[in-house]
Amino acid sequence: MLRGTWYISPTPFTEAGGVDTDSLGRIVAAAASWGVDGITILGVMGEAADLTAAERETVLSTVAAAARDTVPFAVGCSAPSAAVVAGNARRAVEAGAAAVMISAPPLLKDTDQIAAFYRAATADLGVPVIVQDEPAATGVTLPVSALLAALDASGSTVVKLEDPPTPPKIGRLLAQRPGLTVFGGLGGVSAYSELRRGAAGTMTGFAYPEILRAIRLAFEAGDTAAAARINDRFLPYLVFEGQVRVGLAIRKEVLRRRGVLATARTRALNPLPDEATLAELDDVLARVGLTPSIDPFAVTA
Amino acid sequence: MLRGTWYISPTPFTEAGGVDTDSLGRIVAAAASWGVDGITILGVMGEAADLTAAERETVLSTVAAAARDTVPFAVGCSAPSAAVVAGNARRAVEAGAAAVMISAPPLLKDTDQIAAFYRAATADLGVPVIVQDEPAATGVTLPVSALLAALDASGSTVVKLEDPPTPPKIGRLLAQRPGLTVFGGLGGVSAYSELRRGAAGTMTGFAYPEILRAIRLAFEAGDTAAAARINDRFLPYLVFEGQVRVGLAIRKEVLRRRGVLATARTRALNPLPDEATLAELDDVLARVGLTPSIDPFAVTA
Amino acid sequence: MLRGTWYISPTPFTEAGGVDTDSLGRIVAAAASWGVDGITILGVMGEAADLTAAERETVLSTVAAAARDTVPFAVGCSAPSAAVVAGNARRAVEAGAAAVMISAPPLLKDTDQIAAFYRAATADLGVPVIVQDEPAATGVTLPVSALLAALDASGSTVVKLEDPPTPPKIGRLLAQRPGLTVFGGLGGVSAYSELRRGAAGTMTGFAYPEILRAIRLAFEAGDTAAAARINDRFLPYLVFEGQVRVGLAIRKEVLRRRGVLATARTRALNPLPDEATLAELDDVLARVGLTPSIDPFAVTA
Amino acid sequence: MLRGTWYISPTPFTEAGGVDTDSLGRIVAAAASWGVDGITILGVMGEAADLTAAERETVLSTVAAAARDTVPFAVGCSAPSAAVVAGNARRAVEAGAAAVMISAPPLLKDTDQIAAFYRAATADLGVPVIVQDEPAATGVTLPVSALLAALDASGSTVVKLEDPPTPPKIGRLLAQRPGLTVFGGLGGVSAYSELRRGAAGTMTGFAYPEILRAIRLAFEAGDTAAAARINDRFLPYLVFEGQVRVGLAIRKEVLRRRGVLATARTRALNPLPDEATLAELDDVLARVGLTPSIDPFAVTA
Repeated sequence: MLRGTWYISPTPFTEAGGVDTDSLGRIVAAAASWGVDGITILGVMGEAADLTAAERETVLSTVAAAARDTVPFAVGCSAPSAAVVAGNARRAVEAGAAAVMISAPPLLKDTDQIAAFYRAATADLGVPVIVQDEPAATGVTLPVSALLAALDASGSTVVKLEDPPTPPKIGRLLAQRPGLTVFGGLGGVSAYSELRRGAAGTMTGFAYPEILRAIRLAFEAGDTAAAARINDRFLPYLVFEGQVRVGLAIRKEVLRRRGVLATARTRALNPLPDEATLAELDDVLARVGLTPSIDPFAVTA
Repeated sequence: MLRGTWYISPTPFTEAGGVDTDSLGRIVAAAASWGVDGITILGVMGEAADLTAAERETVLSTVAAAARDTVPFAVGCSAPSAAVVAGNARRAVEAGAAAVMISAPPLLKDTDQIAAFYRAATADLGVPVIVQDEPAATGVTLPVSALLAALDASGSTVVKLEDPPTPPKIGRLLAQRPGLTVFGGLGGVSAYSELRRGAAGTMTGFAYPEILRAIRLAFEAGDTAAAARINDRFLPYLVFEGQVRVGLAIRKEVLRRRGVLATARTRALNPLPDEATLAELDDVLARVGLTPSIDPFAVTA
Repeated sequence: MLRGTWYISPTPFTEAGGVDTDSLGRIVAAAASWGVDGITILGVMGEAADLTAAERETVLSTVAAAARDTVPFAVGCSAPSAAVVAGNARRAVEAGAAAVMISAPPLLKDTDQIAAFYRAATADLGVPVIVQDEPAATGVTLPVSALLAALDASGSTVVKLEDPPTPPKIGRLLAQRPGLTVFGGLGGVSAYSELRRGAAGTMTGFAYPEILRAIRLAFEAGDTAAAARINDRFLPYLVFEGQVRVGLAIRKEVLRRRGVLATARTRALNPLPDEATLAELDDVLARVGLTPSIDPFAVTA
Repeated sequence: MLRGTWYISPTPFTEAGGVDTDSLGRIVAAAASWGVDGITILGVMGEAADLTAAERETVLSTVAAAARDTVPFAVGCSAPSAAVVAGNARRAVEAGAAAVMISAPPLLKDTDQIAAFYRAATADLGVPVIVQDEPAATGVTLPVSALLAALDASGSTVVKLEDPPTPPKIGRLLAQRPGLTVFGGLGGVSAYSELRRGAAGTMTGFAYPEILRAIRLAFEAGDTAAAARINDRFLPYLVFEGQVRVGLAIRKEVLRRRGVLATARTRALNPLPDEATLAELDDVLARVGLTPSIDPFAVTA
């Protein structure tokens, strides 16, 4: 189950700034309709670190209710201390999570401590752990040896990579640990390259997951040329949406246009795309032929 | 009121790992008996980032009840998003906080955004804001210009410095903004130097605040030689306790020996000082003449 | 002159590992044939920090001789101390450089010092200074206010950006300082977006500068649709070559295939692209229709 | 030979800003008179990164001539690329160096590459390699596992630590690799603690090396109380001089007062201690009883 095209959900906000549970329900329904293999909540893209504990619980319980019998969900449980991670993880399991996702503690200096952290954070969980390699959000670069130590300490065989460039790191990981499940990330910018290196799929917040799914299905069917064509056709938008920092607001704006979110609000200091970004968004969507009414199953090259 | 010797409280834990409210009450009583001008909770030394929201509330309400009519308290409210900081700050004010302390958001890249962050985090608070300069915990180094922008944006005139070396930074801050209240920090290692540069006191977690108070009182009374003598006498222990990362466990061990805490537990991965550290602790306390039974008002050089 | 499509040259090495002056001469001739407006040597892509002083001088004097009467050249002069930068810059001017390029000193903590650094590094130079915004290589993120301070301190009106995402930073820079010359960078991955935001061109090491030139010429001629089409057609290769860390070896391999370099050697620890990277290089070049024999003036969408 | 009290030499500058070879000669003579076991040049404190190659050669050849038959010298050879390090190291050996000192390449992200770097940098050297653990200057934190990999790759058994807190890191290193020679650093601020943990001495730029030597000799003679007394007596000055960034100018000013250097100039942007720092220097030297005329062999507690 932990492979394929997983969708990392944003946390939607109302105009007043609170968590928008209606939109959250629509995200789950939309994700299911897009054919994703699972949905991940409360990750970096879900602005988990920017939520209060009450808001975090709202997101979790809303998604758990909406996803039951529909689509498996994983829960980002990262926090500075192993004790808080463990608490987040237990609550996620209780709510029905299929897996938990955990990154290194922010600003960890001594990467030799990574095993102790994951061991303490994940003891007796009962669901799979996804080790998240997230240098931009944590300030911690994990070499392959530390990632393997984190996997071993949490009894995990699943990694989600966000350390660019991801394709060669996938190669190094699989060379040292064949059989590992490695999800690509980074907004799908290197989705096709990641599959070539052995990725089991993508787990990312790209606003058109059906495109990443189509790339993967073509690749898995052996039609690498078709996979590359879909990748290349949509690449201008993948690159545009994949921009660090401003990308989240772009994603939310697109989800708003797709009828999923009520607003494009984020908790960043400059929450909305500016006029120039919106103009370029219109331009790039038109260039690649994406509109809100795109038929999610009609993605071709 | 926001000057003098403020004590940054640790968060005590029971053997089972939860917040130890009994010890927390003793901390407030001890701090009052040590003659501090105020107590700050839920800062970096309070392991605020390692607590759940419920634990955070427990700490806040316990201290608020214990400190009422005894000693003013300030509350660390730092968090990755301005929205969460603002919520923490409102709750702190509601609970009776005399001030709130806020650091830059972790891993902030564009320091030109600091004013927008503090403005959003502190709007309509009703109590003074302490701008905390904390590069080690946040990964963000703020130049003086950014610190001044943060002060202006939050209508604050109070800074707490943790960016070494603090003495020259105090000098640069006061040269550009005379009249500012600047607290020294860093465990008091440079307490005397900070005062020479114009610090209004210290706000730090050093386990013998009465020593920092004695240095300051001597300095303020014009007896700089006495201030220096007290500083120099206790410096071996100030340096020992002030070690990054391992210092917190040392402090908690000393507070345990002083009868304040029930345990020396922390939420760090290696929670207790190892045997070599404990042996050196015994050695250094003996060298400077500190024992648990030290008479807090008998500190002299 | 300091606008348009500037090419950042790599430093070619022989099989034995030394500077390959024959290939260096071919780079200058090729760059001229590609129609670039200038060539920049001894930048990050030129592995300037990895050369000895003697090798640095070899690169400079070889290019100066080859470029005379052919194409203007700029010289990267960055170094940890302003004194060394100033020496590098004086030597560059003496050799005939049209401009010098200078980044912040590595690991600079106090960005308020940026003006003093640029002032000391660039006093009495006699040629324009290009302020290089290079967080990946320096570990220093400069907010717009610091970039403007660096420009003012060096009497410069030219910036080269490498801080992603570059398009919004171009927008912020030009909003605060209209008329500034801003070069995009980052391997041209956002070349079209950068032009939309007001970039004066690109200064980067992309191995097919004629593509970046064609995008710019179409854009400047008012045919933004054509500019976008060229951008989008070659984007799969732009993204592939633009990968951090591994990108340089890819570029050198392509320049080898184009008949410019004798080897693809770099001074990185893993100097050559691995087999999987080479296979993907073949794939992506074929997908976008790029071959070594591409007619440099026949780039169209 | 690689143990005991090694002195890291600054690079002296004339008023005009060039390397001051006369003062450099006096440094060697003074170091010998102070009874140090060796002298290390061109380290971080030697501002090696701020020198031109010609100045580097001047420092090396001057010290080599002065130190012959007097005191062993080690040479800092750190640089961003292994090729340049190797060249520096070969030249150092040729000049008579007893050892070379090498830190990780600046801003190294993937610490799994550390072995490849040291292997390439140190092949066939013929003198011992000192692996320098220098996070402040390199931006790279090396866990113990990476330090051991660097040691193995360079056939070295000698480490110099600058990663605070050094005492517990010494403990972790020796627990995993008994018999290792570990030098403490950080200006000697934790000299006594480092010895307690098993350090073989200190290698640092503290301006009164005879004090560090006296601490070590007492400790090695089994008189730990005397070692602690000397440490504690001089600690106010050790802490004052040990301040990051401003410490170098303080050291040079003290060496000027001791009659060793002609000027206190550095290549930092703010090269001289300001007035407040000088006033505090006078104060702290008086407090601990240090004057330029201190008898180097009369250090007692």
